Parts: sequence; structure tokens; C-alpha cells
Amino acid sequence: MKPLIAITIGDCNGIGPEVALKSIIHPSIKKICVPILVGPLHIFDATAKALKLKKVKFMKTTFPLLPRSFVPVVDVGDAIWSDVTFGTPTKLSGRNAGVAIERAVELCLQQKVQAMVTAPSSKEALNLAGFNFPGQTEMIALLSHSQRVAMMLIGGTMRVGLVTIHTGINNVSAQITKEKTLDKLTIVHQSLRDDFGIKKPRIAVLALNPHAGEKGIIGTEEDEIIIPALTEAKAAGILAEGPFPADGFFGSAAYKKYDGILAMYHDQGLIPLKMLAFDKGVNFSAGLKIVRTSPDHGTAFDLAGKNKANISSMLEAIKLAVSISHSRQHHD
Amino acid sequence: MKPLIAITIGDCNGIGPEVALKSIIHPSIKKICVPILVGPLHIFDATAKALKLKKVKFMKTTFPLLPRSFVPVVDVGDAIWSDVTFGTPTKLSGRNAGVAIERAVELCLQQKVQAMVTAPSSKEALNLAGFNFPGQTEMIALLSHSQRVAMMLIGGTMRVGLVTIHTGINNVSAQITKEKTLDKLTIVHQSLRDDFGIKKPRIAVLALNPHAGEKGIIGTEEDEIIIPALTEAKAAGILAEGPFPADGFFGSAAYKKYDGILAMYHDQGLIPLKMLAFDKGVNFSAGLKIVRTSPDHGTAFDLAGKNKANISSMLEAIKLAVSISHSRQHHD
Repeated sequence: MKPLIAITIGDCNGIGPEVALKSIIHPSIKKICVPILVGPLHIFDATAKALKLKKVKFMKTTFPLLPRSFVPVVDVGDAIWSDVTFGTPTKLSGRNAGVAIERAVELCLQQKVQAMVTAPSSKEALNLAGFNFPGQTEMIALLSHSQRVAMMLIGGTMRVGLVTIHTGINNVSAQITKEKTLDKLTIVHQSLRDDFGIKKPRIAVLALNPHAGEKGIIGTEEDEIIIPALTEAKAAGILAEGPFPADGFFGSAAYKKYDGILAMYHDQGLIPLKMLAFDKGVNFSAGLKIVRTSPDHGTAFDLAGKNKANISSMLEAIKLAVSISHSRQHHD
Repeated sequence: MKPLIAITIGDCNGIGPEVALKSIIHPSIKKICVPILVGPLHIFDATAKALKLKKVKFMKTTFPLLPRSFVPVVDVGDAIWSDVTFGTPTKLSGRNAGVAIERAVELCLQQKVQAMVTAPSSKEALNLAGFNFPGQTEMIALLSHSQRVAMMLIGGTMRVGLVTIHTGINNVSAQITKEKTLDKLTIVHQSLRDDFGIKKPRIAVLALNPHAGEKGIIGTEEDEIIIPALTEAKAAGILAEGPFPADGFFGSAAYKKYDGILAMYHDQGLIPLKMLAFDKGVNFSAGLKIVRTSPDHGTAFDLAGKNKANISSMLEAIKLAVSISHSRQHHD
């Protein structure tokens, strides 16, 4: 049976509804899953009209889902077309993005759907609406009652986990502890094994500082935090190596020898990932009870309403969600 | 007339002497400049024998230099072949690397040579020998009495300047001020114009934080420091834009539209540079009175004494030193 995948609307003032809609009607997606949109039906309907997708019809859905030629929508939120202000994050766009996420998580927890994929939403808008999280990943972790989560970025065979996520550079060092590094490493290890089907994953751990701290001359976190975490991980049977200076690691293509990479902060992992897999990178929240992916791009407010959004990354996000939901069923 | 280029020995326990020697006898180098080695003649001679470069003969040089078939060496330092402990940075290797740098800077200041190229040396060894600098760039800036310097990495048409260099991530934010950002931006601008011959260089300035701080939610340095610095730079006639979130900037290949990039910290600039130009990246100290370049790789202690070192980056470093010394003469 094809898995049911919940697709949230994202920010309706950005490209969220456009990429959600264009993706779910794509032949490669219809073949592998049953997508269910989550957000105001009114907005999806108006977006389809604006995009001249005349054949696409929507209907409010209930569960269990009956196969129909309509696109099923879990109709939540209160946005209507006249509320949309393309290009500007608002309290309203944040509220609608937020309630769609809440509902999609609930559907996952109730096992009414097998996975959720979130269209891009704006942290600024979510914050305006009172969803005060540094990012969607942290919000979904809390909503799904998951104590443990690691944000991973997937681009082809490059799989990067992050120790810190939406953290200012000023706070990165303070947020990296031995326990946290070991925890993220363990989550990435388990995910590579259970979600990606790699029996004995090899993981490269990046250094925090330039030149891996150069034996304490530049920084001490490698010796005091990262190496002790690596030692414990190895003792627990995880095939982890490092810490590697990040510039040489990516420059020399050493990353090709590893099934996964643990980066210490956002840009350290996302610069190389996006350079190698722009338009195709997928964000995956490893460690959660539920399966959640998203495209690795933002709301692209500058492209909103122009029918110019690239859906490659969203397509990959849905495909990965399907693949992981199969792996987990297999693993169970 | 061909410019005279001083080439320092680097760390003799690493690949320094090997890449120096192999590069200066390369046809592409002999054609464009007269290279002069700086370091213990004894070590260069023994290295040539170990590498089976039988035809290469050395002689101590004085100035003015007379054209001879021997390789000219400014014989400084006290290392002899039996001191060499491949793979291990020592006080002795640091001392010899350090005095070679001191002498090469002196030759530049005395205008006996037109530029200097430093083979890779170890910060750890330099520190053991009492040269307590975070890196060669900072040491050369001080020795050449230059108040202002910006480390730049050059890889093909990608030219990246750094606001902070060999700084632990923990200290990066504290080291970034409006004045420093503006200063580095100005140095990069002047260098692109005078050293690279770009009349009206366009410069992209990267954000410090993920998502460029997301309007203060993730970090405030963009609003409080970087944007004010950009405003002043623009008022001074510099074509600078930003701050751009680094992952998207490199992922979308936006960097191709700019003559130069200003990165906030080491790995932010070096990860993309090395991914695009590994083996060919060159480190250039912009803003100095003297011309100094170096390969963008390290001492490679693991390859020392094995005749396996790749000289591509060293060749590019010498070629860039020659090119910049011509540009400056032209500019004068």
C-alpha cells in the first residue's frame, strides 16, 4: 500500500502553497504515495487557480481516506486569498503555517499518515504568531514529544547531521557539550542504520575550530569536548572518526568515504551540502518518533506569487519521507 | 626583467622543502620569475638528493644576483639533515621556518626581491620556537610594519577575504566590529583594484549567522555591525552588497557574480574555496606593503619525506605572487 504523506502549506506569503501543490501533482510523487495537504483549503484552491492548474480539485478529507480523484485536504487555519500579502511574513501567515504543522504532527502521532513534509515557513512569521521556536525542527520535536532530535541535511549520498542548528555563531561554542555531541552522533548513527538501511555506517565528525584547534592554539573544544565524545562513541560501537578540519575535509572530497557527517554548526554543514546538492537538498529531523522531512530552502519571499518556484527540493523531500517510512516499517 | 621571488623553506619536518624545491625547478615557474630559496642550504641540498633531483645544484647568493645555472639560496637557519624528524613539528623546525620568514620579509622590504612565497609551516612548531603568532599572515604583517592586512584566498576567479582568521569559533563574534569589517572590506576592495587589476570590483559580504540572523531572531551582528559597515563602505564608493546567508550564497552559485567575497570567519570562506579549488587555492596577504602568497594547504606531516606532495597550489602561489608584483609596478 502507498504511504499517506501529510504536506503542510508553509508560509502562504512565500512559495509554500506553490511548491506543495506543484509537487503533489507531479507524476513521480503520485506513483509512490498518497499526499494529503494540510492548511486552509481556500488557499490551496486559490493557488491552483492562480497557477492555472485547472484540473486540480480539492476536498476536505476525513480518515480513513477513500481513494478519490480529488486532492485530499485537512482543512485547518483561517487564511483566505485576500489575506495573502506576497513577499511579507505576517502574523496571519505564521499562524496558518503553525497550525498546519501542529495538525500534521498530530496525524503522524495518530498514525493516520506515515510521514509529514513541511513546505517552507518563515521563523519571523511563526514568531509573530506566537510560535516561538528557533526553527520548525525544534517545534516539531516538542510537538511530537521527542526528547531527542538531530537536524540532518541529505543531498544524494551526503548526509550531514548538526550538533547546533539555528544558533548564532556567538552561542555555538557554549551549546556544544560532550553529552550533546555524543547524543547527536548516536542519533545520526541510529538513523543511518534504521532510516537509511546502512548496516554499519561510518561517520566523520568535523572539528569546531579552524585547523581542528591546532592542538589548543586556536581552540580547545576539540580536545576537551569532541575527542572525548568520539572516544565514548567508539566504545559504544559507533564507527566514528575525526575531528576533521572542515575546509580540508570537504575540499579533499574526504566526505565521499563516509555514510554520514556530523557538523558542529549550521553553515559548516549547509555550505558544502548546498554546494553539492543545491535545488535537491532535503532537511530530515532524525531521532523523532515521527518521520518529517522538508526542502532545504526557505520561503523565497522574492519569488512568491510568480509561479517561478523550483520544486526539485520539495520532490526530493517527499521521496525521502516515503523511503524512510518504508525503512521504518521494515525495521519494525 | 623577470621578478625575483623569495621562497621560504616552511617546516622541514613537513612537505615544505619538497614543495619549494619541486616548484622552483618547474618549467612554468622558471619561465616567469627568478626564484630564490630562503632557508638552510644544507636542508635544500639534502632534500634534492633525497628526491633524486641530481641536476639541481645550489649556491649561496648575494645581491645583486648574477644569473647562474645554480639555484640561489639565502642560507639562513641552523637545521642539518640529521635534525629532520619527518612528521613531527619541533622547536628546531619552527625556528628554521621562522627565521626564513623573517629574512624573506627583510628582502622584500629592502626591495631585493619583488615578492615572497611561504612554503607551509606549522603554527605549533613556530610557537615552540617562540614565534607566538596565530598564523604566518599575522607574523608577516608585524614584521613588515603593516598595520593593515586581510587574509585572502584565491581560487581561480573566486577571491575570498576574511574578517577573522585563526580565531576559535568561541571568539569570532567578539572580534567582529563595524570598524574591522569596514577595514577588511576596504583592503579587499583596494587589493582587487590594485593587485588584481579590476577597475570597479563588486564585493559580496557574507552574514555571520545562519539565515543572516533572521532579523535578530538568530543573531544581531548583521543589523548592528555588518549592515552599518556596508552602509559606510557604499558611501565611500565601494560596490559592496549583502549580508548574504552563506549557505545559499555558495549553493546558488551567486558567488560567480562577484569579483570578491568577504567572509566573517575561516571555515566560512575556506570550505567553499577549497571545494571549488582544492590543490589550487592560494593564500594572499592583502593590504601589506610587500607581496606575499602561500599555498592554501598545511605542512602535511603525514606525507613528509615520501616524495608524494602535490605542488599545484605552490605553483599557483608563485604565479600569483609574480602577477601581483607586476600589477603593483604597473600601478606605481
